Amino acid sequence: MNLALLFDEDFIDENRARLTGRRLEHLRSILKTDAGESITVGRVNGNMGTGRVVRLTESEAELEISLSTPPPAPLPLTLVLAMPRPKMFRRVLQTCATLGVKDIWLINSYKVEKSFWQTPWLSDDNLRENLTLGLEQARDTTLPSVHIRKRFKPFVEDELPALLSGKHALVAHPGTDTPCPTHLNAPTALCIGPEGGFIPYEVEKLQEAGCQAVHLGARILRVETAVPVLVSRLFDASL
Amino acid sequence: MNLALLFDEDFIDENRARLTGRRLEHLRSILKTDAGESITVGRVNGNMGTGRVVRLTESEAELEISLSTPPPAPLPLTLVLAMPRPKMFRRVLQTCATLGVKDIWLINSYKVEKSFWQTPWLSDDNLRENLTLGLEQARDTTLPSVHIRKRFKPFVEDELPALLSGKHALVAHPGTDTPCPTHLNAPTALCIGPEGGFIPYEVEKLQEAGCQAVHLGARILRVETAVPVLVSRLFDASL
Repeated sequence: MNLALLFDEDFIDENRARLTGRRLEHLRSILKTDAGESITVGRVNGNMGTGRVVRLTESEAELEISLSTPPPAPLPLTLVLAMPRPKMFRRVLQTCATLGVKDIWLINSYKVEKSFWQTPWLSDDNLRENLTLGLEQARDTTLPSVHIRKRFKPFVEDELPALLSGKHALVAHPGTDTPCPTHLNAPTALCIGPEGGFIPYEVEKLQEAGCQAVHLGARILRVETAVPVLVSRLFDASL
Repeated sequence: MNLALLFDEDFIDENRARLTGRRLEHLRSILKTDAGESITVGRVNGNMGTGRVVRLTESEAELEISLSTPPPAPLPLTLVLAMPRPKMFRRVLQTCATLGVKDIWLINSYKVEKSFWQTPWLSDDNLRENLTLGLEQARDTTLPSVHIRKRFKPFVEDELPALLSGKHALVAHPGTDTPCPTHLNAPTALCIGPEGGFIPYEVEKLQEAGCQAVHLGARILRVETAVPVLVSRLFDASL
């Protein structure tokens, strides 16, 4: 936690907030912050700054908040991701939030197992918690949006074309001829398949919607590795 | 497992190998390969090709091996990594192997907890197993070397200068002025600190040895995210 992210419900007045639960535990046992000292804080979808600990008890920390620094710029990326295996999903969410991805679409695909959609990590609370962990790692405050689309065809036919409008549109697909472009640094939509990849029918549908199929070389990467590799490759100017 | 990596002890003669344990389990329950069918295999530090299943029982699969494709090119990278937390270490090892990192130095640092060095993941068998998982994911056969150095100063003073010779030499250090270069695509040594970073004394020692301190932007990345981001940024031509 390189920043404590504060939500509206943490504020008791304009410049005072209370930390409880995980963030309090982190403050006490990892940061070992004493009353009078300050930590880095940010307000969700707002500025970052400092929180001076004015009162510290077993059950809560009261902070005097001063916010003046804007968060880092978001990536100009719409990420369309076949729903990953639950264990990996949690890490991928955190990684996306850490890297500055703000627009995440979770879609179905032939190789997405039906059980993946049952994971508790898809609940609103768990999505928020894992995105928060990623933002707190990065020092960012802008909460990503997560959209869930459990049917492939209606999404690709009815929604995707509008999402791609005005953007570079790519689908990462091993075995295709075109290498993934480097340092685009411009609005981009990127589709990443499940373990085992999109099936040919799905790649065709994504291409019909306007995506170019690109590969990442001879190595086959797990989704959790492909996301940072692709983000770094496409947006080197954002670092 | 996009390739089954075969070791010398798996071969019963020049063109025959036996799979047991994890790889057999994967063959039977995930790939659902039948006798007569082929899977992708590779010989450790050798070529890749196919293994045709000539016999399949509960306890082993016998494969007829044909190898003719060289593995993907290694990255020209020497990675010097402050020993990560055990849980993260295992994933970082796998990710390094998947990305084509072949030369890994695990070093001590002020913020590396003593207990990290006690992890069973550092045993020869466990190192080999996790590197194998990474290679099998990527479809590669070249086993990385892992060097363990539990004392920072002797390593940095006595060994590091020779390791840096003829290479670009970088230490990833948040808060420094110089952004990390992009697409070097040339021999490089890269040092990555622990959670919380190298302390100023350590950065100075690394600089004295010849490393340039570079940053990755405003976001603070976990080591497991920083490795693919940096590799992708430095070696875009290898993809």
